Order: sequence, then structure tokens, then C-alpha cells
Amino acid sequence: MSNAEKALQLHKEWNGKYDIAPKMDIKTREDLALAYTPGVAEPCKEIAKDKSLVYTYTSKANTVAVVSDGSAVLGLGNIGPEAAMPVMEGKAVLFKQFGDVNAVAICLDTQDTEEIISTVKNIAPAFGGINLEDISAPRCFEIETRLKEMLDIPVFHDDQHGTAIVVLAGIINGLKVTGKKKEDCRVVVNGAGSAGIAITKLLLTYGFKHVTMCDKSGILSKASKDLNWMQESMMEVTNLEGKTGTLADALKGADIFVGVSAPGIVSPEMVSSMNKDSILFAMANPVPEIMPDVAKAAGARVVGTGRSDFPNQVNNVVAFPGIFKGALEGHAKQITEEMKLAAANAIADLVPEDELSDTNILPEAFNPVVSEVVAKAVMDHIKD
Amino acid sequence: MSNAEKALQLHKEWNGKYDIAPKMDIKTREDLALAYTPGVAEPCKEIAKDKSLVYTYTSKANTVAVVSDGSAVLGLGNIGPEAAMPVMEGKAVLFKQFGDVNAVAICLDTQDTEEIISTVKNIAPAFGGINLEDISAPRCFEIETRLKEMLDIPVFHDDQHGTAIVVLAGIINGLKVTGKKKEDCRVVVNGAGSAGIAITKLLLTYGFKHVTMCDKSGILSKASKDLNWMQESMMEVTNLEGKTGTLADALKGADIFVGVSAPGIVSPEMVSSMNKDSILFAMANPVPEIMPDVAKAAGARVVGTGRSDFPNQVNNVVAFPGIFKGALEGHAKQITEEMKLAAANAIADLVPEDELSDTNILPEAFNPVVSEVVAKAVMDHIKD
Repeated sequence: MSNAEKALQLHKEWNGKYDIAPKMDIKTREDLALAYTPGVAEPCKEIAKDKSLVYTYTSKANTVAVVSDGSAVLGLGNIGPEAAMPVMEGKAVLFKQFGDVNAVAICLDTQDTEEIISTVKNIAPAFGGINLEDISAPRCFEIETRLKEMLDIPVFHDDQHGTAIVVLAGIINGLKVTGKKKEDCRVVVNGAGSAGIAITKLLLTYGFKHVTMCDKSGILSKASKDLNWMQESMMEVTNLEGKTGTLADALKGADIFVGVSAPGIVSPEMVSSMNKDSILFAMANPVPEIMPDVAKAAGARVVGTGRSDFPNQVNNVVAFPGIFKGALEGHAKQITEEMKLAAANAIADLVPEDELSDTNILPEAFNPVVSEVVAKAVMDHIKD
Repeated sequence: MSNAEKALQLHKEWNGKYDIAPKMDIKTREDLALAYTPGVAEPCKEIAKDKSLVYTYTSKANTVAVVSDGSAVLGLGNIGPEAAMPVMEGKAVLFKQFGDVNAVAICLDTQDTEEIISTVKNIAPAFGGINLEDISAPRCFEIETRLKEMLDIPVFHDDQHGTAIVVLAGIINGLKVTGKKKEDCRVVVNGAGSAGIAITKLLLTYGFKHVTMCDKSGILSKASKDLNWMQESMMEVTNLEGKTGTLADALKGADIFVGVSAPGIVSPEMVSSMNKDSILFAMANPVPEIMPDVAKAAGARVVGTGRSDFPNQVNNVVAFPGIFKGALEGHAKQITEEMKLAAANAIADLVPEDELSDTNILPEAFNPVVSEVVAKAVMDHIKD
């Protein structure tokens, strides 16, 4: 049986990836009277008097909604809410297994920005956090921004920020390995969707000065046509020299390449045209922008991909479970830039200095310490 | 420690009444590749081709949303969504423990009818059924009716139909015990909110001919003022003689009293004025419309309440878990009148004929067979 067939078979056997597990047995009238009526009226009355006690008496304290409209699922595109369910349930399971955070899949029967915003706002009382997932750009930017303004619980679009945090962690260690300085590095981000934009923003926040974004049409500049509002706003802070041209042009003399784009679009010649000790994150899935061995042969020093069968895997699972764990435990009202930077630094620091190498810049995803460490870093940066 | 204090303490310890329990461990890269990417793409692609496969590959098959806006919670009134959470979580736990149905508490930050409808419609792809709970009348009628029209999954307002089904089950057995015939009985339902109206409707569907509704102002008739649209529509099918007067007037010569109203409002004299072998369901909580011993002394034959410390407890837990279990297993698109009647008959039949008595007309809530039997009855009445 192929892995694809096996995955399908397992999904059929599971018939949903999680169960609801009550924390108490209800076997007697007394059990019922304590967990349900009349006893349940007591926490209700307490919360009615002081709304903040919802964190003391209910699952809001430790439950995240994994929300998608099914518009940009994996590499499958706009497959709709039902077909998105296996991914959102999978994400919910990762929350539990990697961060001991309860999470529930919520797939939405609408792709209208306003309806998504009002629906998520309306279900928010039941949840301690909202993980937005697989919502297409540029709608995802407005949805996240507006919800962050409206809600007093963390709202986090993992495709953007989870990816950005792990890439930054990898780059932080890539700088250590190569001895490069962030201020001097020329960075090219290829792909101007949700992940590419979030990565660019976080790199700038971290202190990179020279970032150029590219997409299918080449280098993005103020002269580019058909930019969406978010891409336009990025032109104020990237490509400050106003370069134009192709991805190949962008890569000449660059130190760092981050690809969230398409298979095989980076050639060995492009890598050879980069500066010495170049760092590449080629994260197109399942086939990277350039295969690691090819990139290495062409002169790259550090190469990461999204794949588990190569070194330096960029896997969001080292970030989001710990980030929400920390945010929930600390009753954070939002996940700030400081918390994201703290998470990236904590992830980078999980690789001990004496173990750092070209092929070891990110921690092992299955290390159970990861989410603890990330959670603590996030909690330490909660301000109220 | 009082029971109230104990309930509060337990709610604090639980800090949410349920956990998410993944059905698989994710300890290795292979586990991850099967439950999440890349393997998860397989069920996604299958569902994208044939939406009905969402029931094969995801938790939609066996998960109910317990939805409330917190507007009419227990006897506590409009306490809002956060304060409603302990009740909705409790309900979710009952779904699991009594029917092995997964359920998730969803409390809504809106009490606007249109917003509630659109929110529930939008989250429906993730759920196999919607259990509406503690939404005030008359909004609950429109919300349920509109959602039933829009959605292809069961929508069930338990405060209405769960209560109605259990009361009907009790009355079916009450008729057996007393030898009364439904066609001849005069029934008085006191309380014209969601439960009272649903009970009245189901009794009429079952075949009762003479039902009179009352509320605080006395007998409801076409001449009554300030009726809401649903109450007005009930005047076409109840009180066909156009009686007016007080609850006491209504009860003279009545055979059955159903109270979903207020403590102590039925006097011994009123009971004495009813026909011989009268049947009373006095379900005001925690203090009934009349205490069972007082009613019995005044001539009542069968008395049920909402309390577990008296015989004949009307407890919705004998209905909703089995009803949803059957509806989900049978992929019912809605819960029809036939299914409700089948459930009521099945619940009534759970008390063997030779054990039926004035004080034993309803099955024990903790009998694990109940939800199985109710589920089967419901499944047998699914039409597609």
C-alpha cells in the first residue's frame, strides 16, 4: 500500500481525528447535579458577575478554534470547507500532541471577508484563541487585522506568522553558522502571498535592512502592476533601491533566499550568482525551488526546505503549539511582534551552539521541550 | 461544603469540562506524514471530488455543535455567552456520556436573530448536527425554522423538542396507567415559551384534540393581547372553544396538566377541580408548580417533575443523546416530526408494561440502553 493509500485508509478508520473526552464521569444523579443542573448554575452566576472568570471555570482557558474557509488548502487551492476539514482536524491534533492545547476544527461555509470576520467574532466567547488557517491572500490580511482589533483573544494566521517565525529562527542560526550580519545581508523573498509577506515583515522587524520581494513576474517594486493593497504597502519597506527585473536579477549578490513559491524555479546558476556562504530556504512543497544537493553543489552553504527527508526542515509545528500554549497560559490578549521575535529566538536557541552546523540550524520537531520553551518565551513577553 | 460550593470547586478544578483526545499518536515523521501533510491531502482531494465523503473521512460524522447565545440560560435568564459556557460544556459532556456523540460548546457573541442564523450556517460544514440551547423565545422559533430550511444537517432546539419528546413519552405511559384516551383528554399547558409551545405542538401531532395554553395572564385565546407571532399561530390549533379566564378556569375538568412555568402556581383546589385520574407534569425548576405529595393528596394520579428526588423525572437526557446519535448514524438531513414521535414512543416503551405504575412512567436516565433504543427508533424513521 502506498503512503497515499495508507493515509486515506487511516482517515476512514479514524472517521474524524479526535474525540471529545469529558474530564468527569456522569454515572449518578449526584454527578449530574454537579456537572450539570443544578450545580452548573454556580459557575454561570460567577461568570455573569465577572466575565474574566470564564477562564477559571470553562474550556475557554485552553481551547483554540482552527478556522478556515477552505480557500487555500495546502497546495490544493480553493477546495472548500468540507474538503479542508481533514487538514484543520490534523492541525487540531498537532495542537494537542505538541502543545497540550485543545483545538477544534471550524470550517466555514463562506469566503466573504465580512462574513468570515463576523462569524469568527461571534464564536469567539467559546475560545481562548483563534488560529486562522489556509485562507487565501489578500483576504487573510484584512481578516486577521480586523479580528485582532475586535477581539480580546489572540488571533494568529499560522500560514503567515508560524512560517515566518520558523524561517526567522532558521535564519538566525544560519547567520551564526555563516558569520553574516543581518544589517548587511541582502535577502530575496520569492512568493508574495501570505507567507512571503509575513516572512518579509518579520525579517524587517528583526532588523534586516535589505529585503526584496519577487513573484512570478519578477522583482516587486513601486512600478509593478496589479499589486494588492498589502503588496503595495510592502513596497514602502522593501526594495528601497527600486530594482526591477527577474528573480535571477534579484539573486545576484544576495545572501539569503527564501522561497515560498513553486518547484524548481531556482537554477544552479542563480545560486552561483549569490554571495559566498549563501543561505537558502526553498520551501515549495513537495518539490522545493531547488533541491538541496543541487543548491549545495552550486555554492549554497545552508539549505532548508519544508521536507522531513532533508536537513533543516522548516516545520511550523515547532512554533504554533508553543505560541498558543504560552499565550493561553499567560492570558495574552494578542500575539505581538515581540512575542513572535521571542518565539523565533527561543526556537533558534534550542539548537545548542556546539551542535550548530550547516545542516543543523533548527530543532527537532518531536523534541517535547520545544513547545515548553517557546511557551515560556511567549509568556515572558506578554504585556498588559 | 454545600453542593453549590462543591460544584463551583469542581468547575475550577476541571477548568473546562472536556479535552480534545486525538485518535492517533504523532510521535514520528511517518505519523505526521499520515495524519497531516502530505498524507492528509488524500482525503481532502476525495472530499473535494465528492462532498458526501466528508462523513467518511472527518469528524463531521459524529460531532454536534451545542450553540447558545446565552439569552435564556437555565432559570438564570439572559446571562450572556461567557456565563452560558458551563451549561453548554455540560451539555456536550452529556452528549458524549449518554450517547457517545462528540459535541462542542459554541457560545455566541450576538443575540441578533440574523447574525445567529448566519453564524450557525457558516460553521455548519464542521458539524453533523446543531443543538440549539437556551435561546429565548420567540427568536428561537425563527432561528430554528430558518436554519432547518438552510442546512442539510439536523437542527434541533432541545429546550423545545427534547422536553416535548420526554413529556409526550411520560404522557403516553400516563394514559396507559390511567386508561385515558388521547382523543378525549383535555390538556392544559401552562407556559407559552419555547418549551410550552413545542410540547403543545407535539401533543397535537401525537393526536390530542383538546389542548389549551395558559401563561401568566391566564388562558390564551384569539382574544389575548400581546401574543408573539408563534403564540398567535398556536391559537389556530389550541383552545378551539375560545375559552377565556384563569389557569384555575382552564384546569376545571382537565385530564392533563403540563407546567413549564413558575413555582407553586397550581393550588390543591385546582388539582381537585380536574377530572379523575389526572396526570400532572409540574416542571418548574427547582420548585415545581405544585409539589407531588400535595398534588397527590388533592386527587392527582400521576405526577412528574423535573427533579431527580421525586418519581417520574422528566429528564431530557433520555432523549437528545439518542436522537442525535440516530440522526448522525443514519445521516439524517433533519429531525422530523415522525422521528420525534418515534423517539417518544421508544422512550415510553422502555418501561416494561408490567413495571408501569403511577410512579414509574419514564425510564431511568442512567440506563445505558436508552440512547441505543432511541437512536434505533430515530434511524428507523429516516426518509431520504
